[in-house]
Amino acid sequence: MITDRAELLSLCGERFRATYLIASAPEEALERARDICIEQTVEFPADLIERADIRDQVIGRVESLEEIGPERCEAVIEFAVEVAGGELTQLLNVLFGNISIKPGIRLERLDLPESMGETFRGPRFGRRGLRALLDAPKRPLLSTALKPMGLSGRELAELAADFACGGIDIIKDDHGLSDQSFCRFDDRVSRCSEAVLRAAEQTGKPCLYFPNITAPADELVDRARAAKRAGAGGLVLSPGLTGFDSMRRLADDDDIALPILSHPAFLGSFTAAPGQGISHGALYGQIGRLSGADASIFPSFGGRFSFTSEECRDIVDSTLRPMGRLAPNFPAPAGGMTLERVPELLEFYGEDVILLIGGDLHRHGSNLIEGCGRFVERTNPPPTTS
Amino acid sequence: MITDRAELLSLCGERFRATYLIASAPEEALERARDICIEQTVEFPADLIERADIRDQVIGRVESLEEIGPERCEAVIEFAVEVAGGELTQLLNVLFGNISIKPGIRLERLDLPESMGETFRGPRFGRRGLRALLDAPKRPLLSTALKPMGLSGRELAELAADFACGGIDIIKDDHGLSDQSFCRFDDRVSRCSEAVLRAAEQTGKPCLYFPNITAPADELVDRARAAKRAGAGGLVLSPGLTGFDSMRRLADDDDIALPILSHPAFLGSFTAAPGQGISHGALYGQIGRLSGADASIFPSFGGRFSFTSEECRDIVDSTLRPMGRLAPNFPAPAGGMTLERVPELLEFYGEDVILLIGGDLHRHGSNLIEGCGRFVERTNPPPTTS
Repeated sequence: MITDRAELLSLCGERFRATYLIASAPEEALERARDICIEQTVEFPADLIERADIRDQVIGRVESLEEIGPERCEAVIEFAVEVAGGELTQLLNVLFGNISIKPGIRLERLDLPESMGETFRGPRFGRRGLRALLDAPKRPLLSTALKPMGLSGRELAELAADFACGGIDIIKDDHGLSDQSFCRFDDRVSRCSEAVLRAAEQTGKPCLYFPNITAPADELVDRARAAKRAGAGGLVLSPGLTGFDSMRRLADDDDIALPILSHPAFLGSFTAAPGQGISHGALYGQIGRLSGADASIFPSFGGRFSFTSEECRDIVDSTLRPMGRLAPNFPAPAGGMTLERVPELLEFYGEDVILLIGGDLHRHGSNLIEGCGRFVERTNPPPTTS
Repeated sequence: MITDRAELLSLCGERFRATYLIASAPEEALERARDICIEQTVEFPADLIERADIRDQVIGRVESLEEIGPERCEAVIEFAVEVAGGELTQLLNVLFGNISIKPGIRLERLDLPESMGETFRGPRFGRRGLRALLDAPKRPLLSTALKPMGLSGRELAELAADFACGGIDIIKDDHGLSDQSFCRFDDRVSRCSEAVLRAAEQTGKPCLYFPNITAPADELVDRARAAKRAGAGGLVLSPGLTGFDSMRRLADDDDIALPILSHPAFLGSFTAAPGQGISHGALYGQIGRLSGADASIFPSFGGRFSFTSEECRDIVDSTLRPMGRLAPNFPAPAGGMTLERVPELLEFYGEDVILLIGGDLHRHGSNLIEGCGRFVERTNPPPTTS
């Protein structure tokens, strides 16, 4: 039994809000919302907590509950900022730690007060910064991936040179390239960085190479630094594999200071079941931004994955949704995109997008540069085209 | 078009196997299994890969496909060991990276060759090592958590002392205790470590304090070292928040060398939808062990979460399933357990278990030590009790 014998808490009083979809009718949903308030904080029988300061300040508060459909309610819950302790790991724990294991609860959205937008700096570059690096103030950005796995660093660098000459803006490692014996990280990154820098010099058009630095916890920062030294223009990271905070740590590093492209590998289960997990917008949009992603790759509708256009819209909206002072970042739809679909994709995503086309660029004849040229044309048709 | 111009791959030829449940009838399931082989490796149109070595050695292989029910097939897929590059991040990426985003695929089980059991050392202590530390060769181990959040380090240390005097084996931080302003990590860990060490000296019975070191990526190792210096007996980590490889990195650290208790926070979505995600056994059992967990906390059937007894059995089996040379680790069922249920839990889990009872220990009168005594009695009734 906890009694009132201790020093009082001195919480700052500021609160952040999380919106949950609860798969229950209102009465039961309210009970479940109250349970979330406890489960995500004290995780202790409420009737055994005698201390008023813990009950009032540590336990979350149901701010509102709205029935939005049969057996569907939306609950807004407030938590004290200090409960998250200024740490992304603990913030994610409060938002969805234990309740990830309870059925029928989905984290829909987060709303952070201004002060948390200072604690979490978010994207270092964001849309504006990435556009400035690429000298592309106003058009869709084009990206492709170096693959297939099994090629050597030298071969991938040849591909990279072709892509850069063809007008691609961002050339990324395929996310499965790590440090395999048949394609070592250092060799690949130095060759590809050099090839892309040289091609950009020749064409006069900026082009950035983003190596994949998803790596063991004790090598991640070293790989990012090695990439920077080699002349890479950005970094690819799969936060599902490394943890979101590893991305935040890299984004916050003033010496590395490279744009970060977030890859969705190993994150799919969060959005796999309707009414459970984390909404597409909160996961790929909000949590990605909070973790410092300058662009977030996700599988677009109509490709070889299964996101709907509404789910993709939710992601796009969340890359822009006001969150303290966090910069908007780029949505980067991918996953089986084709040149044929570029007009449709642009109509849906608009110009503030990174279009990522991989395999299909290789389908258009033996000359990769020409394939890239078609990609460029389709995204930016010359005004005199008839 | 990729041609045969490069040096040949020199893969070692050894393979690991992943078993997937695919929610399709056999013909379609075979197609989907072949798609997994590509998606998880080259992620490239197979018809554009002319190099035989990449087709044969890099792309996964369907080893078997068995219909196990209507629209349910089990596919065993083999991947070259070298594709995982000796890194847990990339191994998890090959096992379930992109396909986590495809519906109707569940990772059921992994089978690693002996050589990978050398790459990944797994639990440093495991069942045997943890029993040796606790001088408890043959009985269920008892654990509880320091909570509720909101108490100061001094108050938590008082609780810890009572638990240690009461005969608890492992006293862990609640997983939501990080480094909040109202309960700083350093203060809490030094006070609780000292309290538990002192109590153990008084009782003559070993007792270990496991602080929660789940923390930002750039502070995690420092917290583990600080915990070690303060005299902590182990570490609690939520790999869903930090990434599994952060656990592996800590387990492999010869200077830290403390047992690790894995907490399931933020992992729930992997098992939330039947037929998707990762099986309970593979996630909490196999991947936990591979990542160095000496014990894996999971929500037991019959508590306030929703795992079934079959799912819990799958976890228990996987803590023991042969995996190279990896030591078996402890299942640690938790999540709303009560003293009343101890006999039932022991009947189900047997004696090779860590029983974790939190809130309910506080329900049995104002004297915590007595409550612990009842916990001890129920797990280890004296032979002369009539």
